[in-house]
Amino acid sequence: MNDLDFASWMSQIQRRTEVALEQHLPRTDVLPEQLHEAMRYATLGGGKRVRALLAHAAGEITEAAPERVDIVASSIELIHAYSLVHDDMPCMDNDVLRRGKPTVHVRFDEATALLAGDALQTLAFQLLAENRVTESVGDQLAMIALLASASGSRGMAGGQAIDLGSVGRQIELETLELMHIHKTGALIRASIVLGARCGPRIEPGTLSRLDHFGKVVGLLFQVVDDILDLQSDTATLGKTAGKDAESEKPTYVSLLGLHGARQLADDLLEQARSTLTPFGLQARRLDELASFIVARKY
Amino acid sequence: MNDLDFASWMSQIQRRTEVALEQHLPRTDVLPEQLHEAMRYATLGGGKRVRALLAHAAGEITEAAPERVDIVASSIELIHAYSLVHDDMPCMDNDVLRRGKPTVHVRFDEATALLAGDALQTLAFQLLAENRVTESVGDQLAMIALLASASGSRGMAGGQAIDLGSVGRQIELETLELMHIHKTGALIRASIVLGARCGPRIEPGTLSRLDHFGKVVGLLFQVVDDILDLQSDTATLGKTAGKDAESEKPTYVSLLGLHGARQLADDLLEQARSTLTPFGLQARRLDELASFIVARKY
Repeated sequence: MNDLDFASWMSQIQRRTEVALEQHLPRTDVLPEQLHEAMRYATLGGGKRVRALLAHAAGEITEAAPERVDIVASSIELIHAYSLVHDDMPCMDNDVLRRGKPTVHVRFDEATALLAGDALQTLAFQLLAENRVTESVGDQLAMIALLASASGSRGMAGGQAIDLGSVGRQIELETLELMHIHKTGALIRASIVLGARCGPRIEPGTLSRLDHFGKVVGLLFQVVDDILDLQSDTATLGKTAGKDAESEKPTYVSLLGLHGARQLADDLLEQARSTLTPFGLQARRLDELASFIVARKY
Repeated sequence: MNDLDFASWMSQIQRRTEVALEQHLPRTDVLPEQLHEAMRYATLGGGKRVRALLAHAAGEITEAAPERVDIVASSIELIHAYSLVHDDMPCMDNDVLRRGKPTVHVRFDEATALLAGDALQTLAFQLLAENRVTESVGDQLAMIALLASASGSRGMAGGQAIDLGSVGRQIELETLELMHIHKTGALIRASIVLGARCGPRIEPGTLSRLDHFGKVVGLLFQVVDDILDLQSDTATLGKTAGKDAESEKPTYVSLLGLHGARQLADDLLEQARSTLTPFGLQARRLDELASFIVARKY
C-alpha cells in the first residue's frame, strides 16, 4: 500500500476498520436489541480511528497481514469506544455531544450507556481471544495481557481516575504528564505495539523502539487535544469545545500557555520522528501519522 | 480434600479465593490509590464466593490443580464483583447496601464506582491471560473467549439489559427465564465449565454434562434468590431485602407464588443432582453445592 498517498491510505484503513467493527459487533435483531443498538451507535460511523491507523502503520514495519491487524485494531477501538461512553456519563464528564452526535446516555439512557460500555469492553477481549492474530498462541496470550494492562487501573482507567482527582486543583506538569501517559498514552502505545506484534518480521529492538515512539506520540496527541479544545469550535470538534477551561481541568495550555504548548508539540513531533529513523521507508505511515496528529483540526 | 465435611471444604475454598484475589488486586499504595482502594473494597472481605466454589468443585471432576482453578475462580469473582458495583449504581438498581456494607458509589462516589467496575473487568481478563491455567495455550484462549461470551452482551450484561427492560412490565415466565439464564446463569455455567477445563482428565461428554448442570444450577440459584428477597430481612441478606417487590421487578415468586417457586426449586435441584450421577463420588462437592444453594439463608 506504499504507493497510496497518505490521505488515501488513511481513508482506506478507516473504511476497513469500520467494516471489521461492523462485522464483529452484535446485530440489532439479536436480543437484547437496544443494548446492541447502543453498542453499535457508540462505535460505528465516526471517529478518526487514530488507534486503528497506528496499529496498521506499525504492522507495516513487521509485515503483518492486514486481516490480523484488523482484529487488533477492532479490539482497541472497542476499548476506546467503551471508555468514551463511560467518560461522557453524567457522573464523569457529563458531556452531551460526541463525534457530532448526542452521547450514548443522551440518545438512550444512563443504564444502557453503562451496560453498553461494559459489553464493549468484554467484546474487545472476546475478539482478541477468538481470532488468531499471530503465529504463536503464547504470543497471543501476551497480547491480550498487554491490551488489559494498557486499559486497566494502571493504564487508561487509572488515567481517568487521576484526571478526576485533578479537576479544580493546581497540579504540576509532572502530574499532568503522568495522567496523560495513563489516560490516552497507554492505549496509543498498545495500539502500536500490538499492531507490530501481528507481523512475522520482528527484529530485536523493534518493539521497544516502537513502544518509545508510542509513548511520545501519546503525549503529542494529548498536547494537541488541549490546544484544539481551546482553539476549535464545537462544530469542527464534534464534541463540546472549551470544556476543559470551563470545568477547570488542568491542560498543557493552562500550564504552559498556548505558545508553550505549541512548542512542546513541535519538540515531541521531532522526537517521535527521530525514533523512526532506523526503520527507514517501512515507517513511512507512522511518520505521516505523527505529522497528521499535529496538523489535525479536530 | 474429600475427607473434609462440606462446611470445612467450603470455608477452605472461600479462604483461598480471598487470598488469591488479595494477591492479584492492585495494592492501595500504588497510583491511583483511591481507585485501587475501591477495587479492593468491592471485591474483598465478603460474598459467598458461589462461583469460586463451583469452579473448584468442577475442577475436582477433572483432577485440576487447585492453584490453576484459583486463577479461573479469581477472574470470575472479579467479573461478578464488577457487575455488582455497576448494578448498584443509581442509574441501575440504586442500591446502598451490599454484603452488609455501603455500596461502592456510596462509600466512594459514582465516578469511582464506574471506573472501579471497569478496571475490575479488565483485571479479570488480564489474570486469565497472564497465568497459565491449562496445558494447551490454545485451550486457554478458548477459556478467555468463554469468560467473555458469558459476561458480555449475550451473557451477563445482556441479562442486565433484559432485566432493565422488564421493570414494571408484565412478563411471561419464559422471558423471566431468558433474563436469568443470561443475567446470573451464564457466569455460573462458565464457572463450572472453566473450573473443569483447568484439569487434565476431561472425558468425552464431561464438559457438556457439566454445562447442563450449570444451566440448571444457575436457574436454581435465581429462584432461591427471589424467595430469599421476599422472606429474609436486610440484616441477614446483607443487601436491601424486599427490593424486588418494591421496584416491581418480576420474580419467580411474583409469577408462581411462594409455593410454586419452592416447588420449582425442588424440581431443579432434583434435575441438577441427577445430571451428576455418572461422575460418581468425584461430583460430591458439586452435589453438596447444589443442595447448599437451596438451603442457604442469604
